Amino acid sequence: MTGPAEPTVEALRQRLADFAAARRWEPFHTPKNLAAALSVEAGELLEIFQWLTPEQAAAVMSEPERAHRVRDEVADVLAYLLQFCTVVGVDPLGALAAKIERNELRFPVPTDATGVGEKAVGAPEHVTGVNSDVGE
Amino acid sequence: MTGPAEPTVEALRQRLADFAAARRWEPFHTPKNLAAALSVEAGELLEIFQWLTPEQAAAVMSEPERAHRVRDEVADVLAYLLQFCTVVGVDPLGALAAKIERNELRFPVPTDATGVGEKAVGAPEHVTGVNSDVGE
Amino acid sequence: MTGPAEPTVEALRQRLADFAAARRWEPFHTPKNLAAALSVEAGELLEIFQWLTPEQAAAVMSEPERAHRVRDEVADVLAYLLQFCTVVGVDPLGALAAKIERNELRFPVPTDATGVGEKAVGAPEHVTGVNSDVGE
Amino acid sequence: MTGPAEPTVEALRQRLADFAAARRWEPFHTPKNLAAALSVEAGELLEIFQWLTPEQAAAVMSEPERAHRVRDEVADVLAYLLQFCTVVGVDPLGALAAKIERNELRFPVPTDATGVGEKAVGAPEHVTGVNSDVGE
Repeated sequence: MTGPAEPTVEALRQRLADFAAARRWEPFHTPKNLAAALSVEAGELLEIFQWLTPEQAAAVMSEPERAHRVRDEVADVLAYLLQFCTVVGVDPLGALAAKIERNELRFPVPTDATGVGEKAVGAPEHVTGVNSDVGE
Repeated sequence: MTGPAEPTVEALRQRLADFAAARRWEPFHTPKNLAAALSVEAGELLEIFQWLTPEQAAAVMSEPERAHRVRDEVADVLAYLLQFCTVVGVDPLGALAAKIERNELRFPVPTDATGVGEKAVGAPEHVTGVNSDVGE
Repeated sequence: MTGPAEPTVEALRQRLADFAAARRWEPFHTPKNLAAALSVEAGELLEIFQWLTPEQAAAVMSEPERAHRVRDEVADVLAYLLQFCTVVGVDPLGALAAKIERNELRFPVPTDATGVGEKAVGAPEHVTGVNSDVGE
Repeated sequence: MTGPAEPTVEALRQRLADFAAARRWEPFHTPKNLAAALSVEAGELLEIFQWLTPEQAAAVMSEPERAHRVRDEVADVLAYLLQFCTVVGVDPLGALAAKIERNELRFPVPTDATGVGEKAVGAPEHVTGVNSDVGE
């Protein structure tokens, strides 16, 4: 899913930091404001899907205007996440790698997958709703 | 902000896809469900900051328990964003690079930055609230 | 859906204001913090549903633990909405009544409902995604 | 904050239910879709405040365009909350009254308020971030 000249996350993060600095937006970019902005943008991505049927949602990228909106909101969410990481000093890829490792211990792969129903496997996390995220 | 063995976004995206496939969670990972989960996790990141003063928010990473929560929620947001990108077929870094280019045209750097007040520069985007995201 | 001694919204709004004042929480209850808290709680309500199938979601109140969580999150959302209204001086019922009136003009009832397909009626608002809220 | 002909919550809830039925929107109004829509609208309310300074946020209703947006988003949040309550059969005022009663036990009023600093009183709930909602 990546092209030959694909930028790295670190390059994009730095470019966003330079972008904000050049426009003197840094005073607005507090951790709290950026966390709010990230949440707002995630809501805008969800808005695209809120009334769609499962069939419409699955075909979202085949409709050009919607596809553009989806890419645009993905970019906004990632932009604010990286700007948040800049101001708090978190390495997003390192944080995710560490979390995946914790999750591999927390949700072991069923040893005999052929004998286990899909629902049973998914149930502990997804159906209880108590720990409904991928991680902790 | 990155270590020597830093994983790439593409490697993490693939690892999350394999993780979900091994646990047979794919039926749950519809675009709509993942957009909802992304929004929920962004809310959990915001929750850490909601009652903090600016001073407390700025020092959030100096308190170990809160710092862990911040890294954990950053990982969750990024995980769901990448899983969303997998199911809709969007390249997140390409989408962000394209958006930054559009924004560089949309918000030109002030030519004489020294003569322009910070607030005035930030105002057109930030204060109207009409276009309150980084991008379009 | 209401009992004989049902409290009014105004009585509950005042009770929440007194509650916050007695505990000296007012300095925390800025419009921005309360809007953030409202968004966080709405995310917690959504979290209950994020992985549920349509069948599970429709039966959510028949499972006691989930039913309690739903009522609890509804209460939290309403509590923060009313507290927000207190600090900005908005009358929530008046605002909603005004909006419904605007929407009745904006989305007229189809004159010959029997001849119009359900999807077609819903489509203008719901499917375009441009104006995806009930109102403006 | 209420006028003489103030509608009740129950009257508005019923009016919204009739509104949706007349337009045949009921198939879209699943609990999950309405919870998503509520979260999206709460994000739109937060968006108004995301870059505002505390001073700007406190004066939000003195600027007519912003004041209109605030009332409009309050109406949207309340509309989706009431529509959600309709489809799941929850009494929103009863749920809030019950929660306030639980919270009055959970967060007792300090017996000697004059001798206790504001921050100390607020701290147990607000600063830990573990139980950062008004309620449980």
